[in-house]
Amino acid sequence: MTESIAGLTVDSVVTFTKEVTQQDINTFADVTGDHNPLHSNAEYAAKTRFKQPIAHGMFGAGVISAALGTRLAPDSVVVYLGQNLKFRAPVLAGDTITATCTVTAVEAEKSRLGLQTTVTNQDGAEVIIGDAQVMIDEIRS
Amino acid sequence: MTESIAGLTVDSVVTFTKEVTQQDINTFADVTGDHNPLHSNAEYAAKTRFKQPIAHGMFGAGVISAALGTRLAPDSVVVYLGQNLKFRAPVLAGDTITATCTVTAVEAEKSRLGLQTTVTNQDGAEVIIGDAQVMIDEIRS
Repeated sequence: MTESIAGLTVDSVVTFTKEVTQQDINTFADVTGDHNPLHSNAEYAAKTRFKQPIAHGMFGAGVISAALGTRLAPDSVVVYLGQNLKFRAPVLAGDTITATCTVTAVEAEKSRLGLQTTVTNQDGAEVIIGDAQVMIDEIRS
Repeated sequence: MTESIAGLTVDSVVTFTKEVTQQDINTFADVTGDHNPLHSNAEYAAKTRFKQPIAHGMFGAGVISAALGTRLAPDSVVVYLGQNLKFRAPVLAGDTITATCTVTAVEAEKSRLGLQTTVTNQDGAEVIIGDAQVMIDEIRS
C-alpha cells in the first residue's frame, strides 16, 4: 500500500513562483534587520564578486516557505520542522524564481513528509538546493 | 598557529536581537508570498496546535542572516554558502528573538567559516538550532 498524507505521496510536487523586485529586497532587509549593503547599495555591490546588488539568500528560502505554506496542503496545517539550504547562485532584482518541492518520504504514522526543495531562476539555474521536513496537522473545528 | 579570517577564530560569537511584531509577520508574508493564515489569522490559528498566530519559521532564519550579514565581518563581504535549520518552537508576535552565531570551524586557505547558529526567545528557549557555512571575501577598491 502506498503511504499518503493529505493526498500527498512520494513524487508529489508543488511549486511557487515569485518575481523579485529591489523593493522586495529592501523590505526584506527592513523586516529581518539584515541591512548588509550587498543587498541594496549598487556602489558597494560593485566592489564585490557579485558586481550588483543581490537578494538575501534567505529571501529565496522564503519562496520555499511559500510553496510549503500555501501549496502543499492548504486544507491542513503544515508545521515546518526543518530546512537545509545550499545557496548556489545569486538572485538579482528582476529575477523570477520558482521553488519546486518534491515529496521524497512519507511517514504516515508520524504525519511527516520529507521533501527535496530546489529554487531555480528564469534561466533554469539552481539558486538554492536542499531538503525540508514538515508535519501535516489537522485543522480542529 | 590559530587560524583566523577577518579576526574571527573558533569560538568567536556574534549576535543579533529583534523584537517581532505582527506587522513584521504580515510584511514578511507579503514579501515572500507565504500567506499561510497560520501567520496572520487569529481565528484560523486558534484551530491549530499553536492556538495563536506564529511567525514564519523563515522569519527567525532571517535574524540569523542579519547576524551573519551585519555583525560577523562588516568590513568584508560575507557570502552565504549554506544554512541548516531545525525549527524547535514557535515565535509569537511580541517575542524578542536573538540569533547567536558561534564560529566552529575556520578554513583560512578557502576563506570559509563554519558556525553554529541558534535562535532563542526572551525566555531563553531555543526556537531554531542549526549551522551555517559562509565565505569571507575582500571588498575590492
